[in-house]
Amino acid sequence: MKFATLPNATLDGRLIVVSTDMARAVDATAIAPNLLYAVQHWAEVEPALQALYARLNAGQAEGAFAFEPQKCAAPLPRSPQWLDASAFLNHGRLMERAFNTEPIPDFETVPVMYQGASDDFLGPCDAVPLPDEADGIDFEGEFGVVVDAVPMAATPSEALASVRLLVQINDWSLRALGPREMKTGFGFLQAKPSSSFAPLAVTPDELGDAWHEGRIHLKLQVERNGERFGEPQGGEMNFGFDRLIAHAARTRRLAAGCIIGSGTVSNVDRAAGSACIAERRVIEILDQGHPVTSFMRFGESVRMRAIASDGSAPFGCIEQRVVQAVPGRS
Amino acid sequence: MKFATLPNATLDGRLIVVSTDMARAVDATAIAPNLLYAVQHWAEVEPALQALYARLNAGQAEGAFAFEPQKCAAPLPRSPQWLDASAFLNHGRLMERAFNTEPIPDFETVPVMYQGASDDFLGPCDAVPLPDEADGIDFEGEFGVVVDAVPMAATPSEALASVRLLVQINDWSLRALGPREMKTGFGFLQAKPSSSFAPLAVTPDELGDAWHEGRIHLKLQVERNGERFGEPQGGEMNFGFDRLIAHAARTRRLAAGCIIGSGTVSNVDRAAGSACIAERRVIEILDQGHPVTSFMRFGESVRMRAIASDGSAPFGCIEQRVVQAVPGRS
Repeated sequence: MKFATLPNATLDGRLIVVSTDMARAVDATAIAPNLLYAVQHWAEVEPALQALYARLNAGQAEGAFAFEPQKCAAPLPRSPQWLDASAFLNHGRLMERAFNTEPIPDFETVPVMYQGASDDFLGPCDAVPLPDEADGIDFEGEFGVVVDAVPMAATPSEALASVRLLVQINDWSLRALGPREMKTGFGFLQAKPSSSFAPLAVTPDELGDAWHEGRIHLKLQVERNGERFGEPQGGEMNFGFDRLIAHAARTRRLAAGCIIGSGTVSNVDRAAGSACIAERRVIEILDQGHPVTSFMRFGESVRMRAIASDGSAPFGCIEQRVVQAVPGRS
Repeated sequence: MKFATLPNATLDGRLIVVSTDMARAVDATAIAPNLLYAVQHWAEVEPALQALYARLNAGQAEGAFAFEPQKCAAPLPRSPQWLDASAFLNHGRLMERAFNTEPIPDFETVPVMYQGASDDFLGPCDAVPLPDEADGIDFEGEFGVVVDAVPMAATPSEALASVRLLVQINDWSLRALGPREMKTGFGFLQAKPSSSFAPLAVTPDELGDAWHEGRIHLKLQVERNGERFGEPQGGEMNFGFDRLIAHAARTRRLAAGCIIGSGTVSNVDRAAGSACIAERRVIEILDQGHPVTSFMRFGESVRMRAIASDGSAPFGCIEQRVVQAVPGRS
């Protein structure tokens, strides 16, 4: 199934089901008012959602309308927790050089993960308001999973069975603020403003063979201002989502609807390009002695979409512009 | 006003108003179904809540009942964000020695703060299930504030005006996991299981002169297994909550209901004792060459209450026992 969320007067938006070809959609609020509710009540609502999805794909859903991704909110505009890993070790190793930080202990055997804000996610085409270009505005193309409730100390296989939905994320980052926050040991806070999501959250079966071993085996195509930036392969994750979820749940319960992120998709093969600016900059430093690519300025845009073997974009497309935040607007 | 939350079938519980003397309470759901809703709609609901509080205190509230704090959930069982600072520099300096970590950059001038999980807060008398005594189970006595919506880049004075409620917190910590997570630079995750809250969230006016300059000027009395552990003074915070909120909102909006914590209350005067075990242990190391006090074992209890000048405990009392988590329970 493919789900999306349209904004309404509530913090969770309203649930729509989207056709396999992403052309049509239908309101699903008679089954579940929003996607968070659906994940919280999965066993109860899944059969009716499946039936609605089948009717929509057969052209038989009453009230179906054209799907307009640019009107979507994030599939989950808020979630109980947003926990983002750094599961592509190639990215982590390059970032150590970029930030000039100490090597992370046990980096190859124990996942690293930070807790991000989960109360204010941006939709796929929302403007991205940020206060200052000097903060080093960067995008980070990622994949993520939405889980059902996970008990404390769940095993990786229990964790994998909890995955309900897959999502595609732009984890906006402020690179001028990151190194200082890493050195405090308290982790990223100001360096991580609101993350953005591609319009569609999909059940794992939607990806067919591209979802296996707890990884999303799709290329993530990233463009900046309409020009190619990279298309790294998501399957190269060094830890699968099973390990990442179990890591997150080691000493806590995860409520239904928590989102676990992969961290920036990154490949050892440099021909794949990068899914964030900081990574390209450190490669430039290594190759040319100094960075060439600048961070984002107000007015610049980024586009991200995962590409399936048939050329389709199963999560839809993130297409955003960075703008100056208006002081005092809450 | 004093508010508390009783568990019900929802994730936010149901709102009750509690009398000034903490003897009586009355259901407030006709005004606001839960405390999160009240904070989200403060201007709209405050007058009716004030009127109900006045009737309750005058013995004229219909349906009033005896207040039983041990039945309470956390005032906000979940919140949009939980951001915890380390605003008592005395504590931070001692913890650097305890963890043997590098000095935090700009520690005296820029607040440090981590993002914690905010989807599963524990009530004041809930058992605290944790997976392993070997993780170094510790309590941390703190104060916190609940804010209205705060715009990105708010000033400290705007931030202070956003404070709606004051709370008292036990930020459970796992000390064997903390240093490694600090060294990753990604911050605390497994080291910070669910936090617990005293039963009452109070409006700042409830504390009278004890709330000024963005600080809670009350002693926090901490007992372990019925024995005195410390009673440090909350007014010694090196950064006020105005600075902490503004720090949190530098590059993000804070949704109504976000909670900002002070970090462990700690005083330079060692006669005040400590509000966490790790701090006492490092003092023992400094004084005697080795730690004497052990971390918590399953079955042990902690009690925390802030004491007003009239001897009352304006937030009520946290009184919890650590227990072994039951595997597989979500």
